[in-house]
Amino acid sequence: MSTLGITVKKSEDFSEWYSQVLVKAGLVDLRYNVQGFVVHRPWLMRIIKAIYRLFEEELEKTGHEPVLFPLVIPEENFEKEKEHVEGFKPEVFWVTEAGDEKLERRLALRPTSETAFYYMYSYWIESYRDLPLKLYQSVSVYRNESNTRPLIRGREFLWIEAHDAFATHEEALRQVREDMENSGKIIWEKLGIPFLFLKRPPWDKFAGAEDTYAADTLMPDGRVLQISSTHDLGQRFAKAFNVTFLDRDGQRKFVWQTCYGPGIWRIAAALVAIHGDDKGLVLPFSVAPIQIVIIPIYYKEVDKAPILAKAREVAETLAQKGYRVRVDDREGYTPGWKFNDWELRGVPVRIEIGRREIENKVLTVFRRDTGERTVVAESDLLPTIERLEVDILENLKRRAKEFFESHIVEAKTREEVIKFIKSGNIVKMPFCGTEECAMDLKEKTDGGKVRGTEIDFQEGDYGKCAWCGRPARQVVYVAKSY
Amino acid sequence: MSTLGITVKKSEDFSEWYSQVLVKAGLVDLRYNVQGFVVHRPWLMRIIKAIYRLFEEELEKTGHEPVLFPLVIPEENFEKEKEHVEGFKPEVFWVTEAGDEKLERRLALRPTSETAFYYMYSYWIESYRDLPLKLYQSVSVYRNESNTRPLIRGREFLWIEAHDAFATHEEALRQVREDMENSGKIIWEKLGIPFLFLKRPPWDKFAGAEDTYAADTLMPDGRVLQISSTHDLGQRFAKAFNVTFLDRDGQRKFVWQTCYGPGIWRIAAALVAIHGDDKGLVLPFSVAPIQIVIIPIYYKEVDKAPILAKAREVAETLAQKGYRVRVDDREGYTPGWKFNDWELRGVPVRIEIGRREIENKVLTVFRRDTGERTVVAESDLLPTIERLEVDILENLKRRAKEFFESHIVEAKTREEVIKFIKSGNIVKMPFCGTEECAMDLKEKTDGGKVRGTEIDFQEGDYGKCAWCGRPARQVVYVAKSY
Repeated sequence: MSTLGITVKKSEDFSEWYSQVLVKAGLVDLRYNVQGFVVHRPWLMRIIKAIYRLFEEELEKTGHEPVLFPLVIPEENFEKEKEHVEGFKPEVFWVTEAGDEKLERRLALRPTSETAFYYMYSYWIESYRDLPLKLYQSVSVYRNESNTRPLIRGREFLWIEAHDAFATHEEALRQVREDMENSGKIIWEKLGIPFLFLKRPPWDKFAGAEDTYAADTLMPDGRVLQISSTHDLGQRFAKAFNVTFLDRDGQRKFVWQTCYGPGIWRIAAALVAIHGDDKGLVLPFSVAPIQIVIIPIYYKEVDKAPILAKAREVAETLAQKGYRVRVDDREGYTPGWKFNDWELRGVPVRIEIGRREIENKVLTVFRRDTGERTVVAESDLLPTIERLEVDILENLKRRAKEFFESHIVEAKTREEVIKFIKSGNIVKMPFCGTEECAMDLKEKTDGGKVRGTEIDFQEGDYGKCAWCGRPARQVVYVAKSY
Repeated sequence: MSTLGITVKKSEDFSEWYSQVLVKAGLVDLRYNVQGFVVHRPWLMRIIKAIYRLFEEELEKTGHEPVLFPLVIPEENFEKEKEHVEGFKPEVFWVTEAGDEKLERRLALRPTSETAFYYMYSYWIESYRDLPLKLYQSVSVYRNESNTRPLIRGREFLWIEAHDAFATHEEALRQVREDMENSGKIIWEKLGIPFLFLKRPPWDKFAGAEDTYAADTLMPDGRVLQISSTHDLGQRFAKAFNVTFLDRDGQRKFVWQTCYGPGIWRIAAALVAIHGDDKGLVLPFSVAPIQIVIIPIYYKEVDKAPILAKAREVAETLAQKGYRVRVDDREGYTPGWKFNDWELRGVPVRIEIGRREIENKVLTVFRRDTGERTVVAESDLLPTIERLEVDILENLKRRAKEFFESHIVEAKTREEVIKFIKSGNIVKMPFCGTEECAMDLKEKTDGGKVRGTEIDFQEGDYGKCAWCGRPARQVVYVAKSY
């Protein structure tokens, strides 16, 4: 871990700031010798495990069960759904050899697991009694991406994939809404990351889906990041894999399917990027590996023992209440160095204990999000921490929401679209609905992409398309993206 | 899930019994179309997640931190330690293509991750202050094994690998002991699986280790199964990857390393095989996905509502105490069918609630391990469950230990060795210590293997080798193995 802090301001050079935070806060190491593959260090793994836990608990509450499917998918499965294979094949890694021998057929490293799951769904689903079937797995997936960026785009990245099958299309569409709510309960409520949940235009769907719905957040550099998506797969895969059920009416029917993918990696990226500040990470209690760090401060050897004893006593009190606490008693580092180190890593609350604190039976409490330092009576510590847990999350949410909402700007004209996209906004605009216009817009705005409509949106007469001037049938959100 | 129970007795055809339990209890599905790759179904995944949690908590208590390293290891890393590559290369899966292109160099799917971790350790370790370094990851690994067997030997299997680095060999050897204790605390104390912790003979070491220590349990068919192992790597990998540190004395030195691998898959296999009985799985509370199942029993429609209400009330009471409870209110199945179904899956406690129970304010409580049914006053339920949680584990431990210890048999002669191995025992015998003798023994006992000595064992004069009659320098354990 570096003793150097971040050397650029987040607002001035976000890209460099992001790279520095990832490395200096001990989240990733990029020196592993396969390009696009990242080493996840302990601080990141603890955050990621906490994010996984939040999603898994919520998925289980809504009837999903955990499974684990093989990493490898035979080429023949992979090729069963035409659009799916066309979309994914260019970036698939293939296992072709074992020991000294060539395999008889190539095996894909899962880029996503529809073609593994649904191969088995044809065995598992026989009757309406087997429905709904709601399974998920928490795994890494593999895609030979270019322009990799840690936690944003990798050749190996972490996600959850939930694969659900239903008797009717209506139930599948209700699942899309449940997935949206699941994302809202965690990504917004627990992590304070705001997002728009949009129905993607037809040319930007998941390969093999009837419709794709996705959560876009806004990164500090004005580009949107898709952090979760859910797909109405219709009956396409059901037909490709012959997944049928005997319905109550005695008829054999194809199931209706959805799949949902919270992007655990990207949610971690958004957490770093959106809440972080010039000093480094800022974490909410929900996912902070250490929620409260206690720094003993003494300058004379005689003070050391009583101050350390008090620090440990306070830590014990907090740990008994379930908080993740650490006393930083490392020798050879100044309190100031320790302050910076834990601020860089985003620990939400710091407690400082020195002679003055012990003499006055108080504790100095510092909150990372605002930088405020307050002195509280020892007897007030627990209620103070409980309040801070709530306040810090509320503050992070408020700040993130302010940034997010102030960057959603309505545009009516081509000039406004160009100007607002250039200045890093999400543009809300009337739109003709054609791919041709979207592609022209993208080219002339240096990457502005039509991200889609709100999910309950009804087509209608919305005046003129802000880009091409033809009649507008939709209102869409447009932004540069990762 | 099948409605059919197990059709063979465990004591009469263990192999068939094991295969049936795995499938019928809904643990695995073997129909996935890549040989040796298994689909982990929800019941198994919940058990496995619980086993992982036990190990991770214990590892973290002893200073290990979680990381996640890439799945792929470049061929050049893999080749750095000569014995290691010779040992593993014949069974490595290779990624050679991405999309339409051939990769410039082959990438191994990790068969184990020494050569990924230690590549980075050369960056992370600079001074004695960076030591000890204790990291672990919970992942699948890949080996092109033949004779695969679900949870016992797979081409993809689940484990934990902990990789530790120290300043001295003494600390590394202490770590071996800590790893043994870690295995004991969980595999024996929490899961009730007895094992011998043995120092393997030199010809049976982990490829690249100075010494290998491993936990062997005994399966019901009289073959031992290695369920966890830890390796004194000495400085071999440190030299191969140039992992050095500046010591307090100003000298640059190579680190001393250990790696520890609890075999999560195999621990699950032992759990199934050792505690299971003719009706199926028998699970201790610690890892049971459902600890208590409540079966409402009514034959008249008028009884349904009050009985279901009582079942839910009892479930709520137990859930509030932290128990994993389910009310089985599935329609269209008889109580008897439900009894069999949950017995097959190994749920430790069943509560039956019918008219009689409600009228008498009692509950009928069934424990899976003994098949005993007792009637308890409703007000006594919580203490009864608390006692059962302890009693069931104690009973499983007692039974497993009895079986295990009664199958460790001392032999002094060749005839005894042959007879005792043939009848499915672990033979304890004086041994000359030579590989030549071990190989001869293996051939003539149809697979009996010298598993090693106890870890604190001192060489000396132990009479004559029970196999070859030459002077014995050791006392070893010998058994057929998986």
